[in-house]
Amino acid sequence: MADKAQIIDTIDRYMACMGRADKEGWLALFLDDATVEDPVGTPANQGREALAAFFDLVQSLSDSMELVRTGPIRVAGDEAAVPFQVQSVVGGTPMAVDVIDVFGFDDNAAIVSMRAFWDPTEMRVLES
Amino acid sequence: MADKAQIIDTIDRYMACMGRADKEGWLALFLDDATVEDPVGTPANQGREALAAFFDLVQSLSDSMELVRTGPIRVAGDEAAVPFQVQSVVGGTPMAVDVIDVFGFDDNAAIVSMRAFWDPTEMRVLES
Repeated sequence: MADKAQIIDTIDRYMACMGRADKEGWLALFLDDATVEDPVGTPANQGREALAAFFDLVQSLSDSMELVRTGPIRVAGDEAAVPFQVQSVVGGTPMAVDVIDVFGFDDNAAIVSMRAFWDPTEMRVLES
Repeated sequence: MADKAQIIDTIDRYMACMGRADKEGWLALFLDDATVEDPVGTPANQGREALAAFFDLVQSLSDSMELVRTGPIRVAGDEAAVPFQVQSVVGGTPMAVDVIDVFGFDDNAAIVSMRAFWDPTEMRVLES
């Protein structure tokens, strides 16, 4: 079973790498055949090439983004869930949407799967 | 696919029924062969009889409890995730633990599955 502190560290890195557009750092957190389903209900991206393309797509949708955690990471067994807000700038306008990511891990806390719970229609202008 | 407003209503009822020890109201939210895995990583309870026993067990662990939502319900397809804090009174002492529940629904927003992400070792005295 993965170590709880390692799982939390992997999730912290995941969120930080997404925020600073660090594709190599982000990809290094996954197993080779890992899956990313984002948002839940859409076809999963599987494997390093698909994940890299997904990362590029996400980054292309905004000028910049930050993943701001809104509560503690809940670790349970080899899985974990984390609530956060994506705060992005789109065409100069600050936007936000609420997300919960659910991760599965291998024994070394590498990501086996990630499923993102959010609704694209809930993206809204972030009040300053 | 289940209606988003119906899914949110089912989750609101789930949390309210748990808080007021309304077993019949709680059980009515599930399909007959639904599963509850709580916490994630433990064997799932399946079927109405097992769910009823699970409900009784949870209720027996505290004098009273309330499920206090700490962020919006994230609906994605036929699934949803919700962050909350269980605030319970155990032997006269107010306790709290942070949880994220992940639900699957049928087309009528009845619960097919529930998985609860939390760590029992994180239960703590609630500062007043």
